[in-house]
Amino acid sequence: MRVLSGRPDLRCMNTATLGFREPIERTARRVAAAGFGRITPWRQEIDEAHPERAAQAIRAAGLKLGGYCRTDYFAADDAAGARAAIASNRRAVEVAAVLGAPFVVAVVGGLAPNSKNLSACREQILEGLAALVPTLRATGVAIALEPLHPVYAANRSLLNTVEQARRWCERLDPANEGLFGIAVDAYHVWWDPELEAALGRAAGRVLALHVCDWMRETKDPLLDRGMMGDGVIELGRIRRLVEQGGFGGPVEVEIFSRDVWWKRDPDEVLRTCSARMDTLV
Amino acid sequence: MRVLSGRPDLRCMNTATLGFREPIERTARRVAAAGFGRITPWRQEIDEAHPERAAQAIRAAGLKLGGYCRTDYFAADDAAGARAAIASNRRAVEVAAVLGAPFVVAVVGGLAPNSKNLSACREQILEGLAALVPTLRATGVAIALEPLHPVYAANRSLLNTVEQARRWCERLDPANEGLFGIAVDAYHVWWDPELEAALGRAAGRVLALHVCDWMRETKDPLLDRGMMGDGVIELGRIRRLVEQGGFGGPVEVEIFSRDVWWKRDPDEVLRTCSARMDTLV
Repeated sequence: MRVLSGRPDLRCMNTATLGFREPIERTARRVAAAGFGRITPWRQEIDEAHPERAAQAIRAAGLKLGGYCRTDYFAADDAAGARAAIASNRRAVEVAAVLGAPFVVAVVGGLAPNSKNLSACREQILEGLAALVPTLRATGVAIALEPLHPVYAANRSLLNTVEQARRWCERLDPANEGLFGIAVDAYHVWWDPELEAALGRAAGRVLALHVCDWMRETKDPLLDRGMMGDGVIELGRIRRLVEQGGFGGPVEVEIFSRDVWWKRDPDEVLRTCSARMDTLV
Repeated sequence: MRVLSGRPDLRCMNTATLGFREPIERTARRVAAAGFGRITPWRQEIDEAHPERAAQAIRAAGLKLGGYCRTDYFAADDAAGARAAIASNRRAVEVAAVLGAPFVVAVVGGLAPNSKNLSACREQILEGLAALVPTLRATGVAIALEPLHPVYAANRSLLNTVEQARRWCERLDPANEGLFGIAVDAYHVWWDPELEAALGRAAGRVLALHVCDWMRETKDPLLDRGMMGDGVIELGRIRRLVEQGGFGGPVEVEIFSRDVWWKRDPDEVLRTCSARMDTLV
């Protein structure tokens, strides 16, 4: 396994970890000062009408982009809703290109608001993703399909395992041209009894590795994620499996923690993340 | 698909649905009066030193047993803990035999309290299950392995998909002698993109079908389960898949709902369950 210590190029901070409390310019400076070489911002932090301003601020801080978060949900109850999601997600890809992000993370969405039809909604999502292909080709930006934990299937993502993401990549990008890949987040996939086999088959498709931790007694699966080392995930095992498949990108910290880490001083959070990456990831 | 209306033999009530507010004798009378022909009680409701008393009360109400809930968690940090779980679970099987329950539902438990080692804990669980075989043979009672939703992997069950349960059955009961089978609970498996294929391969192994519903905005994955029809699960689809595999047992209602259904009058809850079974399951 790669050594992460002293390697800013292998250390990426997802801005969600800091709770979106400050403008991206200030966040970027803090992240760089903590020894991270990459940053993954969220759309809500970027003025998408003028993304070159944020791009400049991030460059000025000495950072590169890890990725860009994230797509709007694809499944909708009517055609107008589906078209709006595709239009928004095309814009995310264009903005990612301006920022210099290699990919947009796709959180594909759950069931359409008035639907229970899993297969129809998954098909609608796949059609929406396929509609992005011309923009992906034009920009050189990829889509990193992120399987989310099955607890989010109803309302956030009908893409729930690495194996399912791999199959979607095979369908959307059969020649592996780099249009679609997979964002593996340890929080979402750690429990999967098929994980090792699925990551083996997904070799060459993984674009991102996200880390945080799953607390044994999770109060809220969305906003009670743990700092690396505080929960039950064998983070080293997952990184080893991903790296065995050829992954060479940075390890990205993404922690949604409303009641703990989002209340701490941002520099303390970054220092803690950095120290944990050296020993526990 | 089978018609459930007017078929008490195909309608089973899991007592958790009523929130454990009354003694089993009274619960059994209510359940029978609502048109259910079977009941699945929990260990906390049965005096396991004298299970013949509860057996008599359930028979007197005109009910048969659906199953018996449930095993203690197998994974432990030391050998004494593992032995204690096995001893408790042997006793559950013996009690099930006295009650006349065809199987004990196995909720296998999550990680041992101080472990992060998924594969070691799963192995310990499998060894614990295997240790029950002599008691299963002696009593004729089976173990119904229940895959739980992955949200429970850390603290309640490292068995999380139908396919995983099928593999465990193949290992524990390779000749399919009826020692081990699968309890399919729609709440736990509805999201699984592999569900149809897994249920196809599990044909002949399914011992139980549990229903409730997954609320789109679930507040608490443990105790905020929905009444059939109030959530997003395609219950008819899942029942059809299970019945296509040869399942001929009753459909069992099991709803953990602390803030809604556990506060309602038990007879109202039973009437609602019964009506929903006629049209929505």
